[in-house]
Amino acid sequence: MALKFNDSYANGFISEAEIASISSEVLAAQKTLLDGTGEGNAFLGWKTLPDDYDREEFARIKAAAKKIQKTCDVFIVIGIGGSYLGSRAVIEFLKSSSYNALKKDTPDIYFSGRDISAQSLSELLSICEGRDVCINVISKSGTTTEPAVAFRVFRALLEEKYGKEGARERIFVTTDKARGTLKKFADEEGYETFVVPDDVGGRFSVLTAVGLLPIAVSGVEIDELMRGASDAAKEYAVADVNANAALRYAAVRNLLYRKGYAIEVLVSYESYATMLNEWWKQLFGESEGKDGKGLFPASVIFSTELHSLGQFIQEGTRNLFETIVKVKTPDVSMKVPYDEANVDGLNFLAGTELSTINEKAMQGTILAHVDGGAPNLVIEIDEKNEYCLGKLLYFFEFACGVSGYTLGVNPFNQPGVEAYKKNMFALLGKPGYEDAKAALEARLK
Amino acid sequence: MALKFNDSYANGFISEAEIASISSEVLAAQKTLLDGTGEGNAFLGWKTLPDDYDREEFARIKAAAKKIQKTCDVFIVIGIGGSYLGSRAVIEFLKSSSYNALKKDTPDIYFSGRDISAQSLSELLSICEGRDVCINVISKSGTTTEPAVAFRVFRALLEEKYGKEGARERIFVTTDKARGTLKKFADEEGYETFVVPDDVGGRFSVLTAVGLLPIAVSGVEIDELMRGASDAAKEYAVADVNANAALRYAAVRNLLYRKGYAIEVLVSYESYATMLNEWWKQLFGESEGKDGKGLFPASVIFSTELHSLGQFIQEGTRNLFETIVKVKTPDVSMKVPYDEANVDGLNFLAGTELSTINEKAMQGTILAHVDGGAPNLVIEIDEKNEYCLGKLLYFFEFACGVSGYTLGVNPFNQPGVEAYKKNMFALLGKPGYEDAKAALEARLK
Repeated sequence: MALKFNDSYANGFISEAEIASISSEVLAAQKTLLDGTGEGNAFLGWKTLPDDYDREEFARIKAAAKKIQKTCDVFIVIGIGGSYLGSRAVIEFLKSSSYNALKKDTPDIYFSGRDISAQSLSELLSICEGRDVCINVISKSGTTTEPAVAFRVFRALLEEKYGKEGARERIFVTTDKARGTLKKFADEEGYETFVVPDDVGGRFSVLTAVGLLPIAVSGVEIDELMRGASDAAKEYAVADVNANAALRYAAVRNLLYRKGYAIEVLVSYESYATMLNEWWKQLFGESEGKDGKGLFPASVIFSTELHSLGQFIQEGTRNLFETIVKVKTPDVSMKVPYDEANVDGLNFLAGTELSTINEKAMQGTILAHVDGGAPNLVIEIDEKNEYCLGKLLYFFEFACGVSGYTLGVNPFNQPGVEAYKKNMFALLGKPGYEDAKAALEARLK
Repeated sequence: MALKFNDSYANGFISEAEIASISSEVLAAQKTLLDGTGEGNAFLGWKTLPDDYDREEFARIKAAAKKIQKTCDVFIVIGIGGSYLGSRAVIEFLKSSSYNALKKDTPDIYFSGRDISAQSLSELLSICEGRDVCINVISKSGTTTEPAVAFRVFRALLEEKYGKEGARERIFVTTDKARGTLKKFADEEGYETFVVPDDVGGRFSVLTAVGLLPIAVSGVEIDELMRGASDAAKEYAVADVNANAALRYAAVRNLLYRKGYAIEVLVSYESYATMLNEWWKQLFGESEGKDGKGLFPASVIFSTELHSLGQFIQEGTRNLFETIVKVKTPDVSMKVPYDEANVDGLNFLAGTELSTINEKAMQGTILAHVDGGAPNLVIEIDEKNEYCLGKLLYFFEFACGVSGYTLGVNPFNQPGVEAYKKNMFALLGKPGYEDAKAALEARLK
């Protein structure tokens, strides 16, 4: 199985009868998703990706990653939203959230083009000084403001540093397979290109070239990621809410939502999951947050945040539940040292593995939070490796599709993302947006 | 003023009449806070700290910071919750969220003792290899598990590397002024000590030695921080909800809470505010999240997260409002470069400052989100400097006290934080907790 879902700590909040009663909705949602008959069905490419991916491109991704590893010290990934969250989540989860600070034989990886910050951009330029750089710009259209500005800056840097010919070998473009200005430009310039598929939305794109190239550069085995996802695709096609972890998760979170639990907090006990939490927040928040509906997605890293948000979760407004992502088998050993002075009174733990203490902290917290009125769900994967993470990513993607249809929304669009952009372009005086400018400016206070 | 609060974008959601109607409650809460007559009044030391701090200790903090700057490459701050969030927030806000990756003449600063992770701890040990290290352990009692374990590990490292005498010059202890095992041990060993005051809770401790020593090590001017907070203390003592920004903020957020807005999202458009957001989440979440009450504190960095959580905020469940922290005068200049090819169609922005685009993104987003049904509040500080940040920190602390009393809770305790610890100790078999162990284990599933 490699992944287990345990909702028994939610027993006091929802009953098996309630799960049975929502099962027909969830099964119908699953059928809609599998048959491709629901809203947003032009964006279901992620479903079959783990088996149907382009082998030729996959081999080119691995070759490009090797080339990047050999030729640069700093690899800059330029992309926003789904164009960086998936790769960053996988790299940090499997390598480290301190990946760049650690000694290693792969390049440092920085994520740029995610904001409109002069400080972030100028800092990254200073970090690149005296070091060899490659870039991967990821944008379907090539016109999204944040990555476009960063691409202008770093392309200029590379051309100045290596000349036009040299820069060509260091610029990798992930974009539309045929249309769009970026594809056209990349072909003209002779950059190597990879494909953002038409039928995969940004937040579902981690297992396309969008995610896989940066992931491969970090040294993660992308074949194993795909194998985990492929096995997951088979398991979650089973039409049984009790045997199918993704369906059961979709059922339980919809039930809790209907009972007034408005916030889902994704929990991990290791900081390497910080960006996985962020990826999950986009996946569920952008898929379900529409039509005035949806669970607000939040996240915490414990035990750290037991000392900041723990109080609220234990005793605050009773409108949240927690979903814990846990790795069963620890992969790093470190024991509490014995201390003659025993200043802290912790000698009863001397010789105990930190992973054991961390697990007891988790168990103690689950029981405390359940007692405090916060339902707890647990997703457990066997090991911190590529295979299990591939499975976990697909688990969340599939559960998200089913959950969104159960909620009654189109889980595969994001119409609300355009609203701020239109206003921003009008306020910036972009050609074609002139009409709206004065009206918006009049509303500024 | 240096700090302005603007709630005019919430006009469509709350009226001046409603603000007037809650004003007497807010003024009463302010009076309770200023007079020290409310619940938790043993923990009001933070109120007068900016003027009444210990000058002798303040001078020692600056001297210790200079010594640390001279003698180490890596400075490790060991503390959890309020013992690290304040200093980390200030350092990242005023220096950078990439502080460690940048070239500088101050030490790298790492925060440890925040979790129970073998991976985090062993990675930090590897980062220290071949580099000179100083540590600052911050713990009132000295017995909190997470920092205590880290202190064992790094004290052993320093003693092995520099001998007991050498380590003594590199270990700085911030703890209770008289009681506690850590104070006793530090005195015996001859470590320099600083004080965690009895009357200041962790989340309000950023302007005590807890926050100030690490902050000073990063090169931030702590006198200016205190001066900003001192001016703030005078401004927020004024008993006028309309003229006093802290009172107005407390009034508006309580009104929104009563109208069913259950989530407050703190927003910044610069990643340097990431940890300030986390500090704020502890401050408000731990102060107000009790007795089944409180706004759930969340945070985002835009425009990054407009491409992940933006959809939810624009169109999802209408149970949230946003509070934006904005710096008026940009301090880094960078312009969009002109690009002959104009691949992205952004030449209409060539020569435009990124800060201008970022501001238009903010304005466009505020209008879009308000149109979508999410009230927006704006807190603006004049500049990104010590003085204004000192003022902002005090603004939030004071508003939090007033808001908590208005909500009807004790804003200065955190009884819920103990629940998980008790369970954890019982499950770990800590002497004195044996009775609870079997009962807890029987509940694990």
